[in-house]
Amino acid sequence: MDEAHRTGRLLGINIAFLPEFVYGGIDGAITTFAVVAGATGADLDIPVVIILGFANLIADGFSMSVGNYFSTKASVDDYDKHKATEYWEIENKRDTEVEEVREIYRQKGFTGELLEQVVSVITADKDVWVDTMMKEELDMTRDHKSPYQTAGMTFFSFLMIGFIPLAAYVFALLFDTSTERLFLYACILTGLALSIIGVLKSTVTGKNILQGIAETLVLGGVAAILAYYVGAVLENLF
Amino acid sequence: MDEAHRTGRLLGINIAFLPEFVYGGIDGAITTFAVVAGATGADLDIPVVIILGFANLIADGFSMSVGNYFSTKASVDDYDKHKATEYWEIENKRDTEVEEVREIYRQKGFTGELLEQVVSVITADKDVWVDTMMKEELDMTRDHKSPYQTAGMTFFSFLMIGFIPLAAYVFALLFDTSTERLFLYACILTGLALSIIGVLKSTVTGKNILQGIAETLVLGGVAAILAYYVGAVLENLF
Repeated sequence: MDEAHRTGRLLGINIAFLPEFVYGGIDGAITTFAVVAGATGADLDIPVVIILGFANLIADGFSMSVGNYFSTKASVDDYDKHKATEYWEIENKRDTEVEEVREIYRQKGFTGELLEQVVSVITADKDVWVDTMMKEELDMTRDHKSPYQTAGMTFFSFLMIGFIPLAAYVFALLFDTSTERLFLYACILTGLALSIIGVLKSTVTGKNILQGIAETLVLGGVAAILAYYVGAVLENLF
Repeated sequence: MDEAHRTGRLLGINIAFLPEFVYGGIDGAITTFAVVAGATGADLDIPVVIILGFANLIADGFSMSVGNYFSTKASVDDYDKHKATEYWEIENKRDTEVEEVREIYRQKGFTGELLEQVVSVITADKDVWVDTMMKEELDMTRDHKSPYQTAGMTFFSFLMIGFIPLAAYVFALLFDTSTERLFLYACILTGLALSIIGVLKSTVTGKNILQGIAETLVLGGVAAILAYYVGAVLENLF
């Protein structure tokens, strides 16, 4: 445990990136399922389904990663802006900020002379002072993950988990075995992809694994059914 | 400033949800653009484009919100798990954890007798002690946004910003004015949607607004072009 308990790896993935892995993976699986469902409905050949699937994985995965990049960057910039504000405040509204430190440490159980001594040590170093305000007043810690890292992990997860619903078609192409049941296999594989996410998140967060699988299967399944019907609407209109 | 500086509103949106708004909005705009581009290529009637656009907004927005829900939930569960671990550690590895508190406060500039007094006040209250370990050792603060809130904001933003590229078609339908230039307008509106995100994030984070617009336009534009070509591939194959 100790320091190490935030930096483990699972399936080779740094668990600090679990949220990005879950987000990208769920959307990847559902999106690919929607493409496969639409393509199957339109009775397309296996190579075509595979091309469509991969094209969609790349375009949609990239679009999502761009969204993730700007979202993480906005968080980091927001943190930096508040930090700059705190530096400004300790210069320009010193008395108020000293009183805030006093109140923070009073809440922790410090009183009298000891409280005053603590306040003077904290406020003696601007970096320590601002760090205290960030964590204790604003409840903000800086995200150590860069926007490039979170966007990269989102893309990676979108591709990796999003590929699973396509796997039956790739298998059928490679081994030259076609079957009427390909779409059924795609449905099962989509369920498997959602279950992997469920297992992964439950393992990392120490929750009940069966419950984790059930959650991702149910909500992910609803989204996949919605996507399926939208695909059906689309197909009827084209 | 002060306490208030994390709870402002912009366009009626709580700025604490800026990351979700940016994420959902960018993906919404690009996805809708892809649908409009594909439908235009296939020469579909305006009402059909609108139906496809809305169907996609709902299905894709829901899928993304499901991903967001599980992602936020994984973060919150991860925090709770580490917190439980810290409670276990102060019970079962008390000496190590006391030494960690001592080291944390030594880093802040405390020494000698005062350091020892601070350590004993912090370790006298288990909640204060664990809170200190979470913020100072693990650099973790609990996200005050619930998974329902972040998923809801993602959906809302996906719909609101994602609707913009469709607006020209809705306008044309309502006012019974069709034009050859509808797709051009959709391109301009997509650029507008991406620019709104750029303005919003720059305003909130205090960055240069023109740079913010340029960033979202360039990266969002690349994603939209990718999506457009995938749509073209799709169309040729169907």
